[in-house]
Amino acid sequence: MSYVLYYSPGAASMAVHWMLIEAGIPFEARLIDIDTGAQHDPEYRRLNPAGRVPTLIVDGVPRHESAALLMLLAERHPTAGLAPAPGSPDRAEWFEWMVFFANTLLPAMRDWFYADSDGDPAGAQAVRALAERRIEEAWERLGATLADGRAFLVGGRLSTADFLALMLMRWTRNMPRKATSRENLMPYIIRVRALPSFIELNAREGLSDWSNPVGQA
Amino acid sequence: MSYVLYYSPGAASMAVHWMLIEAGIPFEARLIDIDTGAQHDPEYRRLNPAGRVPTLIVDGVPRHESAALLMLLAERHPTAGLAPAPGSPDRAEWFEWMVFFANTLLPAMRDWFYADSDGDPAGAQAVRALAERRIEEAWERLGATLADGRAFLVGGRLSTADFLALMLMRWTRNMPRKATSRENLMPYIIRVRALPSFIELNAREGLSDWSNPVGQA
Ligand SMILES: N[C@@H](CCC(=O)N[C@@H](CS)C(=O)NCC(=O)O)C(=O)O
Ligand SMILES: N[C@@H](CCC(=O)N[C@@H](CS)C(=O)NCC(=O)O)C(=O)O
Repeated sequence: MSYVLYYSPGAASMAVHWMLIEAGIPFEARLIDIDTGAQHDPEYRRLNPAGRVPTLIVDGVPRHESAALLMLLAERHPTAGLAPAPGSPDRAEWFEWMVFFANTLLPAMRDWFYADSDGDPAGAQAVRALAERRIEEAWERLGATLADGRAFLVGGRLSTADFLALMLMRWTRNMPRKATSRENLMPYIIRVRALPSFIELNAREGLSDWSNPVGQA
Repeated sequence: MSYVLYYSPGAASMAVHWMLIEAGIPFEARLIDIDTGAQHDPEYRRLNPAGRVPTLIVDGVPRHESAALLMLLAERHPTAGLAPAPGSPDRAEWFEWMVFFANTLLPAMRDWFYADSDGDPAGAQAVRALAERRIEEAWERLGATLADGRAFLVGGRLSTADFLALMLMRWTRNMPRKATSRENLMPYIIRVRALPSFIELNAREGLSDWSNPVGQA
């Protein structure tokens, strides 16, 4: 099984990058810096016609969609234990969270960050307003779920759903209402950010702006 | 394994309803007519706090998100053959289409149909304009994929991806640009609508406005 990950620091590729590191899966990482427009390079467009990151080359074939890549990797590397096993009682909840993130938070974040370029700039403010409302609702829901003090989102242990959740929370760091300003999310954020794989991920992507304060475990 | 499906005719529940029929899985169907506001009923809200359909009660526990339910059912009923088997070469493509629909077309359709109530009505036109653009792009992509004459979306055989695709295409029937007006989608639409399970699904949901013309196989 061979993997090549095309990523941009802090982008939607981050969850997949994290999973590969956490699971100890051998892979090659190739930088496509979206801040420099590298995603529009014709050579990259052949691998990803939409010009987005991530792309994961799986045994020679380019694949897309962060949530799909996480589910695929969990299935191909079951001993990593990053998804409840098929047939286990937590399986349905895991599928539901994975699709919820793909269906609700990821598109709302796309709207928030890309309203001007995906659509008519004249309508961007309206698009962002609706996106913000949906993002708020999603954090409310996540906060309500985490209120029972669970360590991780699904089944009491780290899974691909946590990778997506943290990535999405990180994206709020410059938004009017940050995930870190929500008391009911903070214990979870602190806990998951403390994972050695998250620290290693940030180091490899050159990120330092959304880490636990030193001394906070 | 027991299932109770809460559905509304023609809504996002349709793909799950279809799968249950096609796979011959025993289930009970309960009508939540969203045209009458039944989704806001407090009793239903206990099963689905967002007030949406579908809800599928799986062995007593309410589960949500049409794409997640389809993946779960495919896994729990592998002999139905409605997803490429884990480890098979088509598996990655199947995950990718399932997440693509959940991430791109489903949210754009939500914007199209619910811009006024999900958000500020004053911004609804801008939201719908962006939604329409994304829906058009998605059909372009689907049309390009189907241009090779494949019978079904993934692996040459019917899968859950086709249920989502057809449901979404049906939703365009009163939109300015209908899926059925696209030449490169029509052979696929005609083929999948001809399935006995689709005809049965329409009969059970009381729908008759998006079927193949009589005599068209
Ligand atoms: N649904 C995709 C979304 C990917 C996406 O939108 N990525 C953004 C970065 S977070 C991107 O590539 N942006 C560059 C661009 O659109 O030009 C996924 O989850 O993989
Ligand atoms: N992401 C959900 C979307 C469900 C959804 O938006 N359903 C619509 C009907 S297509 C609904 O319940 N609408 C009623 C309402 O929002 O009041 C899924 O795929 O299951």
